[in-house]
Amino acid sequence: MIYLTRHEHFNAAHKLYNANWSPEKNEEVFGKCANANWHGHNYELMVTVKGEINQETGFLMDVKVLSKIIQEHVCEHLDHRNLNLDVPFLQGKHPSTENVAIAIWNQIVPHLPNGVQLHRIRLYETPRIGVDYYGE
Amino acid sequence: MIYLTRHEHFNAAHKLYNANWSPEKNEEVFGKCANANWHGHNYELMVTVKGEINQETGFLMDVKVLSKIIQEHVCEHLDHRNLNLDVPFLQGKHPSTENVAIAIWNQIVPHLPNGVQLHRIRLYETPRIGVDYYGE
Amino acid sequence: MIYLTRHEHFNAAHKLYNANWSPEKNEEVFGKCANANWHGHNYELMVTVKGEINQETGFLMDVKVLSKIIQEHVCEHLDHRNLNLDVPFLQGKHPSTENVAIAIWNQIVPHLPNGVQLHRIRLYETPRIGVDYYGE
Amino acid sequence: MIYLTRHEHFNAAHKLYNANWSPEKNEEVFGKCANANWHGHNYELMVTVKGEINQETGFLMDVKVLSKIIQEHVCEHLDHRNLNLDVPFLQGKHPSTENVAIAIWNQIVPHLPNGVQLHRIRLYETPRIGVDYYGE
Amino acid sequence: MIYLTRHEHFNAAHKLYNANWSPEKNEEVFGKCANANWHGHNYELMVTVKGEINQETGFLMDVKVLSKIIQEHVCEHLDHRNLNLDVPFLQGKHPSTENVAIAIWNQIVPHLPNGVQLHRIRLYETPRIGVDYYGE
Amino acid sequence: MIYLTRHEHFNAAHKLYNANWSPEKNEEVFGKCANANWHGHNYELMVTVKGEINQETGFLMDVKVLSKIIQEHVCEHLDHRNLNLDVPFLQGKHPSTENVAIAIWNQIVPHLPNGVQLHRIRLYETPRIGVDYYGE
Repeated sequence: MIYLTRHEHFNAAHKLYNANWSPEKNEEVFGKCANANWHGHNYELMVTVKGEINQETGFLMDVKVLSKIIQEHVCEHLDHRNLNLDVPFLQGKHPSTENVAIAIWNQIVPHLPNGVQLHRIRLYETPRIGVDYYGE
Repeated sequence: MIYLTRHEHFNAAHKLYNANWSPEKNEEVFGKCANANWHGHNYELMVTVKGEINQETGFLMDVKVLSKIIQEHVCEHLDHRNLNLDVPFLQGKHPSTENVAIAIWNQIVPHLPNGVQLHRIRLYETPRIGVDYYGE
Repeated sequence: MIYLTRHEHFNAAHKLYNANWSPEKNEEVFGKCANANWHGHNYELMVTVKGEINQETGFLMDVKVLSKIIQEHVCEHLDHRNLNLDVPFLQGKHPSTENVAIAIWNQIVPHLPNGVQLHRIRLYETPRIGVDYYGE
Repeated sequence: MIYLTRHEHFNAAHKLYNANWSPEKNEEVFGKCANANWHGHNYELMVTVKGEINQETGFLMDVKVLSKIIQEHVCEHLDHRNLNLDVPFLQGKHPSTENVAIAIWNQIVPHLPNGVQLHRIRLYETPRIGVDYYGE
Repeated sequence: MIYLTRHEHFNAAHKLYNANWSPEKNEEVFGKCANANWHGHNYELMVTVKGEINQETGFLMDVKVLSKIIQEHVCEHLDHRNLNLDVPFLQGKHPSTENVAIAIWNQIVPHLPNGVQLHRIRLYETPRIGVDYYGE
Repeated sequence: MIYLTRHEHFNAAHKLYNANWSPEKNEEVFGKCANANWHGHNYELMVTVKGEINQETGFLMDVKVLSKIIQEHVCEHLDHRNLNLDVPFLQGKHPSTENVAIAIWNQIVPHLPNGVQLHRIRLYETPRIGVDYYGE
């Protein structure tokens, strides 16, 4: 069993607010993250897959293929977008780092080759705040 | 003559567009940076000042004071804000990294102690795109 | 189950020595780390907590609260201190990175909110030497 | 149980190709990584060991000893070498990051002190592509 | 006057040797960098241009255009190549970091837009060894 | 003219205080940096030299020689030391980052080869606080 990690990134706007709450409660809970006119981040995404090495290639899987899957199913939808407004697979979801990481997991799983499992989504919102999700 | 650099950061939303242009021309020139619903970045800001060392303290200036100046006159206005909408000192300015760097220069200069000159504003929009401004 | 990591740091002095040993044996075992007049590090601390996402906030827990817990119960006691002399919760402990990591674990556990578990203390003494502790 | 990680690095040339395949198939599968005249990387290696803390030293093991083991049994053989041609312990192995990580595991295991287990080999080929191996 | 920097990278093999010298003298001068079977690096390239801001775009120049120039005239020729053998614009040049930086300068200058000057080529061979060239 | 930079590091303890002042004034001016029992840092040192390229080697100077000069005349004296107490070339100097950078300049200048000039000492005390000195 070997684990392969690919780093990608996307730059996006978002805000944190709960539509069921008053603006005051949103500001109380989310502080400046609730700023009505949005803020944004350079998100760093690390996708880890696992499985056995193919003896002919020496690869778990071709990392260029992994990169293409992440680009096509994740980054193209999130990069230079508003996470609250622009992303079909985030509709109705509060775009906390936690929820975005889980949504990214679901975007990638169906596209991995046979024999390769998704192990972890690691998503850093800033260099000092990150989330890990292992699918369960 | 000694140079002292302090790194700070802020997370903000913005978009690039020229209000005198059609949406089509904005998209042609600015591409995905013109996304109507904004995108955002973790900006890294490096402020460099220069001057002579105070023999009593061994400091050009107290770096905690420099940090406080940057926080008060720059980061509090930009962090978790929309650079197009929320920032008085950017009103009417196109928030390209170039223009934001120059505006930051102007925010800091009036607040430095006697004998300390602002040398350079370095502003990174992403880890791979940065701008330097020396005041002229 | 989701994992949230917060990075903090502190700058401290320490030395490595065993008071039951002769100076010669201390120098033989700990080398320059036993320098009588101390040395120091910029410690990088990554605290990972785990649990379930609160549906109303989208958070495992508010990362600003996590940061405040780390500041109050760890960094305020260690930052700009001598780890051998100044820190009540390290009294009588040899301040190796391993022991400091475990002591940090014990400082944080009692203060986490209900439903949030401490998962890992990761402590880097230099960019190339780090320790992980999982509480067991 | 505590985990200790030491970062080391080596700079090496390699290419990816399967000697049982035609040049065309190699290029189809490995793309520019199959360049006949080689290419190269600054490899970042993180070696993690685990075990119990020695009460007299406060160490799992002396990190200088761990560093010396990695230097002697790994880096001296790989640094400024060609991974396809110059390394006895890689003979007959396709030097993908996956295979090199496993070979490094096997180089280190026999040399660890009693009571210290190898936990993980993490090998980054570029800042954005890495592999983890846990020995099974 | 504003300065804009774009970071790119390429991964390449090379060796250091002077064809006018004996193998012994090459090894004496260049040490392990003269390894006959090559070694390699992940090169980090920072290209800085300078000029005045275009008032309509807020840009010195479009950083995507700068990136494309670097890709087309530098990285496509160097990435996953052997710097001694594969690169027309390095033929007959000893591929030290110094010489490669100067050759990159010459590759970029002719392709910059009117009003934009090349200011600096910064080339890091490893995270700890870099070269700057200002064209004179 | 080419510029070559070598990064090195050292880990040291220090405190900031002016022996002519009362403890109260020292704490007022230097805050927690005046902690009587010291604190410490992982200092990052970047030494930049300049001159012309030797046509036979392709080098401004051998970076391994530059590294050796820095090790011998700087790091061996500072690493795992107390900057206030243990370093002959800092005796009687207040070990602010500014003063340490200037002292490092003076340690290196006499040892550079003919034709190679020292251009800049850059010294980072933490990842966010650094000083540059150009010798004048």
